[in-house]
Amino acid sequence: MNPYDRNYKWVYLLTEGNGDMRTLFGGKGAGVSEMIQAGLPVPPGFAITTEACNAYYANERQFPEGMWTQATIALHSLEEQTGKRFGAPENPLLISVRSGAAISMPGMMDTVLNLGLNDETTEGLAALTGERRFALDAYRRFIAMFGHIVMGVDSAKFDRVLERTKIHTQGGRDTDLSETQLEEVIEAYKRIIFAEQHGQPFPQDPHSQLRMAISAVFDSWMGRRAVDYRRVYRIADELGTAVTVQAMVFGNLNWESGTGVAFTRNPSTGERSLYGEYLLNAQGEDVVAGTRTPKYIKELAQELPQVAAQLDEITQSLERHYRDMQDIEFTIEWGKLWLLQTRSGKRTGAAAVRIAVDMVTEGLIDQSTAILRIEPDQLEQLLHPTVAPDAEAIVLTTGLPASPGAAAGIVILDPDEAEKLAQDSDAEPFVLVRHETSPEDFHGMVGAQAVLTVRGGMTSHAAVVARGMGKPCVAGAGSIEIDPHQECLRIGEHVVRKGAWITVDGSTGRVFLGKVPTSEPEFHDDLLQLLAWADERRTLRVRANADTAADAKMARSFGAEGIGLSRTEHMFFDEERLEPMRQMILAENWAERVQALEKILPLQQQDFMAIFRVMDRLPVTIRLLDPPLHEFLPSREDLVTEITELRFTLLQHSQSMSHVAQLISQISERETLLRQVDRLREVNPMLGHRGCRLGLVYPEVTEMQVRAIFEAACTVKSEGIEVLLEIMVPLVATSVELLNQSEIIHRVAREVTGAHGLTLDYKVGTMIELPRAALVADRIAQHADFFSFGTNDLTQTTLGMSRDDSAHFLPSYIVHKVLPDDPFQVIDEEGVGQLIQLGVERGRATNPQLKTGICGEHGGNPRSIAFFNRVGVDYVSCSPFRVPIARLAAAQAAIRSSQA
Amino acid sequence: MNPYDRNYKWVYLLTEGNGDMRTLFGGKGAGVSEMIQAGLPVPPGFAITTEACNAYYANERQFPEGMWTQATIALHSLEEQTGKRFGAPENPLLISVRSGAAISMPGMMDTVLNLGLNDETTEGLAALTGERRFALDAYRRFIAMFGHIVMGVDSAKFDRVLERTKIHTQGGRDTDLSETQLEEVIEAYKRIIFAEQHGQPFPQDPHSQLRMAISAVFDSWMGRRAVDYRRVYRIADELGTAVTVQAMVFGNLNWESGTGVAFTRNPSTGERSLYGEYLLNAQGEDVVAGTRTPKYIKELAQELPQVAAQLDEITQSLERHYRDMQDIEFTIEWGKLWLLQTRSGKRTGAAAVRIAVDMVTEGLIDQSTAILRIEPDQLEQLLHPTVAPDAEAIVLTTGLPASPGAAAGIVILDPDEAEKLAQDSDAEPFVLVRHETSPEDFHGMVGAQAVLTVRGGMTSHAAVVARGMGKPCVAGAGSIEIDPHQECLRIGEHVVRKGAWITVDGSTGRVFLGKVPTSEPEFHDDLLQLLAWADERRTLRVRANADTAADAKMARSFGAEGIGLSRTEHMFFDEERLEPMRQMILAENWAERVQALEKILPLQQQDFMAIFRVMDRLPVTIRLLDPPLHEFLPSREDLVTEITELRFTLLQHSQSMSHVAQLISQISERETLLRQVDRLREVNPMLGHRGCRLGLVYPEVTEMQVRAIFEAACTVKSEGIEVLLEIMVPLVATSVELLNQSEIIHRVAREVTGAHGLTLDYKVGTMIELPRAALVADRIAQHADFFSFGTNDLTQTTLGMSRDDSAHFLPSYIVHKVLPDDPFQVIDEEGVGQLIQLGVERGRATNPQLKTGICGEHGGNPRSIAFFNRVGVDYVSCSPFRVPIARLAAAQAAIRSSQA
Repeated sequence: MNPYDRNYKWVYLLTEGNGDMRTLFGGKGAGVSEMIQAGLPVPPGFAITTEACNAYYANERQFPEGMWTQATIALHSLEEQTGKRFGAPENPLLISVRSGAAISMPGMMDTVLNLGLNDETTEGLAALTGERRFALDAYRRFIAMFGHIVMGVDSAKFDRVLERTKIHTQGGRDTDLSETQLEEVIEAYKRIIFAEQHGQPFPQDPHSQLRMAISAVFDSWMGRRAVDYRRVYRIADELGTAVTVQAMVFGNLNWESGTGVAFTRNPSTGERSLYGEYLLNAQGEDVVAGTRTPKYIKELAQELPQVAAQLDEITQSLERHYRDMQDIEFTIEWGKLWLLQTRSGKRTGAAAVRIAVDMVTEGLIDQSTAILRIEPDQLEQLLHPTVAPDAEAIVLTTGLPASPGAAAGIVILDPDEAEKLAQDSDAEPFVLVRHETSPEDFHGMVGAQAVLTVRGGMTSHAAVVARGMGKPCVAGAGSIEIDPHQECLRIGEHVVRKGAWITVDGSTGRVFLGKVPTSEPEFHDDLLQLLAWADERRTLRVRANADTAADAKMARSFGAEGIGLSRTEHMFFDEERLEPMRQMILAENWAERVQALEKILPLQQQDFMAIFRVMDRLPVTIRLLDPPLHEFLPSREDLVTEITELRFTLLQHSQSMSHVAQLISQISERETLLRQVDRLREVNPMLGHRGCRLGLVYPEVTEMQVRAIFEAACTVKSEGIEVLLEIMVPLVATSVELLNQSEIIHRVAREVTGAHGLTLDYKVGTMIELPRAALVADRIAQHADFFSFGTNDLTQTTLGMSRDDSAHFLPSYIVHKVLPDDPFQVIDEEGVGQLIQLGVERGRATNPQLKTGICGEHGGNPRSIAFFNRVGVDYVSCSPFRVPIARLAAAQAAIRSSQA
Repeated sequence: MNPYDRNYKWVYLLTEGNGDMRTLFGGKGAGVSEMIQAGLPVPPGFAITTEACNAYYANERQFPEGMWTQATIALHSLEEQTGKRFGAPENPLLISVRSGAAISMPGMMDTVLNLGLNDETTEGLAALTGERRFALDAYRRFIAMFGHIVMGVDSAKFDRVLERTKIHTQGGRDTDLSETQLEEVIEAYKRIIFAEQHGQPFPQDPHSQLRMAISAVFDSWMGRRAVDYRRVYRIADELGTAVTVQAMVFGNLNWESGTGVAFTRNPSTGERSLYGEYLLNAQGEDVVAGTRTPKYIKELAQELPQVAAQLDEITQSLERHYRDMQDIEFTIEWGKLWLLQTRSGKRTGAAAVRIAVDMVTEGLIDQSTAILRIEPDQLEQLLHPTVAPDAEAIVLTTGLPASPGAAAGIVILDPDEAEKLAQDSDAEPFVLVRHETSPEDFHGMVGAQAVLTVRGGMTSHAAVVARGMGKPCVAGAGSIEIDPHQECLRIGEHVVRKGAWITVDGSTGRVFLGKVPTSEPEFHDDLLQLLAWADERRTLRVRANADTAADAKMARSFGAEGIGLSRTEHMFFDEERLEPMRQMILAENWAERVQALEKILPLQQQDFMAIFRVMDRLPVTIRLLDPPLHEFLPSREDLVTEITELRFTLLQHSQSMSHVAQLISQISERETLLRQVDRLREVNPMLGHRGCRLGLVYPEVTEMQVRAIFEAACTVKSEGIEVLLEIMVPLVATSVELLNQSEIIHRVAREVTGAHGLTLDYKVGTMIELPRAALVADRIAQHADFFSFGTNDLTQTTLGMSRDDSAHFLPSYIVHKVLPDDPFQVIDEEGVGQLIQLGVERGRATNPQLKTGICGEHGGNPRSIAFFNRVGVDYVSCSPFRVPIARLAAAQAAIRSSQA
């Protein structure tokens, strides 16, 4: 490359290039070349190379020798291909000029359209189209665009002229300007340029226009914004920018012209048939403006059968070439079809799956490519009802997407009323709305379509119970005020009364006013096929978090290969079972506690038996009691309120002695409970007396749970069920804790299996959910058969960030890029990831047989799954509905890592 | 060593050994040998070596050839030295037989005393002492001891006989047994042994007794308890046990005999004079029993001048030999002094310092040894008033030792009353007792002698404020119930009314009933000398945590080399300053917030100026606002209570309209505040919106604080003060957070110094108090001049353990050895320590100039300081009163690491 070498090739016709020539042609030029190579009818054009740009800078901002001559020759070629002439009044060739670096770079020069217009060609265009107003308007726009982008005039000056002129029109819109007014505007624009450019007029010569535009593109490469951008993203200055010049085509030339958009397959269902719309005698702008209603693409066969046939054929070759469903923009000029742009089309989850599977059948792509084509999160749509994407509805507020799916119902505030309503078969479906829920609201949640809470996070009672029941839930919608007296919700300006319809979208956290249509889930054959391919490729196993037999059943139907986390505490979230639990917690001494535990044991045993039966031959990991005990007690506020209300009543009823006595006894009972609640109250419950710390202080609780587990396992084993039991100790920070708890487990196991006269294999492992546990994993692993990384708590402790409280600052953290993602959604690889890696390595160092898994919410997050695959854990465990997503994501991770 | 080599030396006289021969003689034998080498009169004895024990096992539990002969010869030597004969009725030699391994091992054989007694020698002893009852009692005890320890008879059988016999006495005590009854007991004991041992009688032959006792010692080495102990502590079986045989001496032989204990220097003051007490014609038991009052050791010079002179001389040689103050047990037998035991004596902090410094002066030890002699925590006693160690007082309860020192005062429950009392110069001193304190109680704390709270931990408001004011504080004394109606405290069975005296010991957490004498602190020349030596040796620098100029002054007087942590939030803990802070927090928008901040700025500036003046030429690290904002608001409970009470009042006053209006407005105002409190309420405030997360969301708060700091620094600089300013950003988890905050700091610094026309060097650094920060220290260090490890929060997050909530389980964790120590007192080296080490290494890897320090409570803990010294941090920072302790501990760490 020598700027003085006139024979060096500075200019290429786009027919000479292909899609790989990004470095030389820039991204846009290479893209158009690829379309040409794919045999598509693209408006002809040429590229001035990035080398020419570099030569320009090497040559004191002069075009390299020969470049302009080569560009002129290329321009002739365009004239030949289009039958138009650049600068000719009759049928004038107009062109677009674009900048284009190898890497897409905002801050570079914008596109200049309709270059080639001047006073003469404008009249020619007017004559050709019979639309003088259109031609003048195009000229007016071109002068302003050229003046601003190429000549550097402040565009506000053009805007002011236009505004002043529009005042004199009736409607005050651009389209209300008369031809005369447009002529005035054009003259005013020319005067502005003349004045601003110190006497240099707007160039009437199209070749001058082109020279200037090319220079402007080259100059923009060293413009302030482009240079700053390259500094930040460490892009080399030497890349340079190319210039792409392309012929303009007009869909509004006559009634044999038109414009449209089309998908090669249906983006909503994936069906293999052309999908789209068009308008004859129109430009792209007309479609966007919505002043005329576009026609359905099938109708083109009647109106312009030849063009329709060509379009059909083109979609075939497009898909053969790109091997993906394409979204195209086309223009018809005088009966000739031109493709302006093609790109992979956006599609729904259902369409994505169908298209991928179909394309494998059609031989267009292989199975691995099909797997990589699906955004795993898109599967969510296939598994839950969703709010129709085109629904027009008022969003009242957005809370946390606590349990996926969408449902509509009338607002109900009281759980007792909810329970009654649920029993009435004629009643409307309802949404239970509460500040937050507790086990005492459970009966009201059972019959609800969805649950909506004002407070609480993704792990609040409402969220956990709703996920367990597969109901949509939006939690922590803090902008809702519940007015219990008026029985209504206040949300900003809206007042939603009890009984009014709302729609809750638990997948996105949105709450809509009224009854918004939802679409039902589909779990069709294509998805099963795709997941079967995925299962063949992944190495990471996928389990589910399931606390009940119903959850477990669902998980198994979604392909879970076991239960990675069964939380025993959730079994107490319904009110009937809560009672003995409270007795246990409030016990004053060991004997009382054991008595209460005896009542809990058979309940737990039944639960475990049901789960074991469902999970026959698959592993089940049962975690011992984890949350702080006060979670099972009524809330302090509720108690205080009750006491206060009882006191008021007492004040008012001081005449009736029997009533007084009764009130006093009720008050005293609640005050006793309040004292207990206070005793157990914690400043930071996340970091309090929970997990194995409960079992250390109250070994009898561990003993009861383990006894229930082994009694259940022995009973179902004698029914012929194969139990693969794994017992998990939560919140371990030291190896002694695990040792202490596993001694209890082994002893009780011996006792129970001995009494049944059975032998039973089982594993004992631990959660790794505290930084310390990861740091001393080598020691802990000596006593563990498996590690399960509890990434929720590990994230909270590693970052020192309470998930329930992070709403105050996390949004602004994401905006300021302090963290790349919400660390509770996507694993924080840099921080938490280090501890997971360390935990796995150190654990395996002392115990090569150690199994490792993930059981936090991240276990169902595709990007996190890619990380877990890289670290080499054995399995992830996620909520049942995310199992298909995790299977797909795991396969993608495996394919990508084998490709790398 | 060959069990058949009769010439191998199996038995050594203790005069042949020394203190280093633990392996051969066992610990006890070597100890006595050392005393002999030190020229002390020790009852003569011999050791049968551990090799003999091993030979015994190699030889099917037979004594090795020659061993018994050698033992007999050694026994003769004892007879010669004592002038007594083994087995002779007149003046019989009695001996003790002890086991002794090289490593002290509980679970081995106990001592057998008075071996050699039989029917004949007992009568001989009776004749010699003229106390036949004493002789019979000794014999009775010997038979039981021998029967149990050597012959393996269940001691309960002997006990039952004794109990049955005692029923027939008047008092029912051992000493009430008559000679006849004792004779009956002896015969009964003999019959038990005969029966239990299948016809083998109690051996009358003293040599048989000795043979059997030696065998029993050897056998005990392979006893169950000893073997288990060795397995747990990984002690090799091959060590074997020695047998130590020593002549018995009797202090109750006559009035020229006696027994006593003595310290070579005064253990209370350190004064160099013999200190102790004795009883003539008495055994050790008599001193312990307290039936006779012992005499002060000085009186011995009158009673037995020769012995007293010998004792004086012995203490000299003892100290020359052991080079430390000794605590000795002695017996005088017929005018001859025998030393039974010597060991380093326990002493008070004051004594420890004085003795160490004196001994350097006396040339007994060098300065490093003197430094190592002091338990650093003992210095605490020298810096605060303490409850006299011998005080006899009722301990009402024990809470957390939240602020050291002891004080007595009358109980006051109401802060307003406390404030009035403080202004009355005639009033009694008082202790303020509260459930917990908030800034609204500050005025009541000012005049209090001490503060006592029912709830709250070591970092509660009460604790922090009391430490700041240097007042004793016991926090979280949960067993106290405050009864506001009766105006009293209930603690178990005790009821303490308002106005009654209590004494609070903030160093130990104890609360005493009544006015308990306290001893005043002394900061004398010896301590200054010792600390001067320490400063010469340590490499770790010592700074103080100080939030006010008063704290800073105290810190400097204690030798702090700078302020390592100045918490700006504590400046708002008094009520006057709280008001603008609340305005800032409750601001509805940016403008209101900035307005409130403008009021805070001059207050902060004044504070900083005062601190800078005190710390002229020493570094001052100021931490930006750290705690969650709701800490500055009134408690939710107080508000709810107030509202409820106002509502009651409203109900009662519904007749007076003006009063009603006033009440309603008061209620409404508090309800507004309550809503704000609710909005800011957090589930886990430790992990919530605090630290730099405040500054990220409200940059104007950071800006105000930084402006106040630089305005203060510039102002005092112009007064000629040298400011070494370090600004610290709290709770950083990512490098972007630090970058964001330091951009504000640098900008404001430029603006303020520019306006003052000054230049000012300053450093910007960060707390490392989250696991993630330590893990990504390499990135953070690129933007930091220094790291300060906040070990309090780092411990809480690494272990997932809230300090405020750990009282429910931490005590049982320490008991079960789940953790070796309270991790909030002593740094958890295995877990948290790893992160500190990692943080230091990674930080220095990318920033070799990085300064590192510690500013958690561990900065003042001696064992933690040893760890920090090893890791190589540059400084520790602790509360002012712990500065001398840290200086000493740092010196000890340096000396020990140079010795290793």
